[in-house]
Amino acid sequence: MPQGQPNAVPDDGLTTRQRRNRPLTIVHTGIGKGKSTAAFGLALRAWNQGWPVGVFQFVKSAKWKVGEERALRVLGASGEGGTVAWHKMGEGWSWVQRDLESSEEAAREGWEQVKRDLAAETYRLYVLDEFAYPMHWGWVDTAEVVGALRDRPGTQHVVITGRNAPPALVDAADLVTDMSKVKHPMDVGQKGQRGIEW
Amino acid sequence: MPQGQPNAVPDDGLTTRQRRNRPLTIVHTGIGKGKSTAAFGLALRAWNQGWPVGVFQFVKSAKWKVGEERALRVLGASGEGGTVAWHKMGEGWSWVQRDLESSEEAAREGWEQVKRDLAAETYRLYVLDEFAYPMHWGWVDTAEVVGALRDRPGTQHVVITGRNAPPALVDAADLVTDMSKVKHPMDVGQKGQRGIEW
Repeated sequence: MPQGQPNAVPDDGLTTRQRRNRPLTIVHTGIGKGKSTAAFGLALRAWNQGWPVGVFQFVKSAKWKVGEERALRVLGASGEGGTVAWHKMGEGWSWVQRDLESSEEAAREGWEQVKRDLAAETYRLYVLDEFAYPMHWGWVDTAEVVGALRDRPGTQHVVITGRNAPPALVDAADLVTDMSKVKHPMDVGQKGQRGIEW
Repeated sequence: MPQGQPNAVPDDGLTTRQRRNRPLTIVHTGIGKGKSTAAFGLALRAWNQGWPVGVFQFVKSAKWKVGEERALRVLGASGEGGTVAWHKMGEGWSWVQRDLESSEEAAREGWEQVKRDLAAETYRLYVLDEFAYPMHWGWVDTAEVVGALRDRPGTQHVVITGRNAPPALVDAADLVTDMSKVKHPMDVGQKGQRGIEW
């Protein structure tokens, strides 16, 4: 969509420029398709700006999204835009040397690393893919996430995907899109297919 | 999301394999963010499969989405996946040599080329970005689009984005997602920002 005019001018003492450069927390939730896909689409824009991008896949099996991963790795290595670091819970986080006992522990380890990276301003865009689930399940404390996002330094944008985004996260986010399913091929018996689902 | 079981087994005489390779018509509509972004995310998967991808941007000004365009052009030129052809109405379609008199005429010219490419099986994935608008406005006949999609040869997937997707298109589509706005920074006076909106 083309650029729009804001619907209100806020009384927050910030200039348009300051407001424009505010770090954003973005949530893609809902039961429809496109939550992660749109997050990786956002990563293309960040890459084009020359930003370092950090992807954290909070899924047990990370076989999925191989297309996005390969594309973003090729882009990151091209030298024409920003860098891309891709971290997968499904293969055991690369920075964790011991065996993780459960998905819950793995999710918590992922979040601990995100906190460290936010404090160090490692990336300019964070894609926390499927991170709504560990919050929804109570594995990672939503209030702690909201606090860490609120207090993060610099201009680091964070995109969180997954069904059932906790209300406190939605409240704290700047941009929230609910992807609703209108129709899906699985409803009529079609399985996922190459190039479309992965 | 990980792969799921279909909700029903259809009585269509097709094998799972035939059904799996069926060409899909995908629609991203609704007033929320992520319609185009998710379509370009799908293009990453298609690229990863080695498929030729054709993007047609049905917008008057194509300044927007420069990040996606550059990323997909770099990927297409990398030789590591499929090719990418990027066509912009905003700059005048490259195959049209004369001046187009109106946006309506330009949209129709774009659709005529899509029809030719579908008949020639030029691409394996078509991203018809913002194409819901010319249909909604009556510039391009929705019934004609539905017919051309129904009769297209081979296995060519088509993604159409834009608000107000016509009901006949939604009926004909295989996969439809409605992106609903829950919250947007413009609501609180923030303008779009670099790396996020473009």
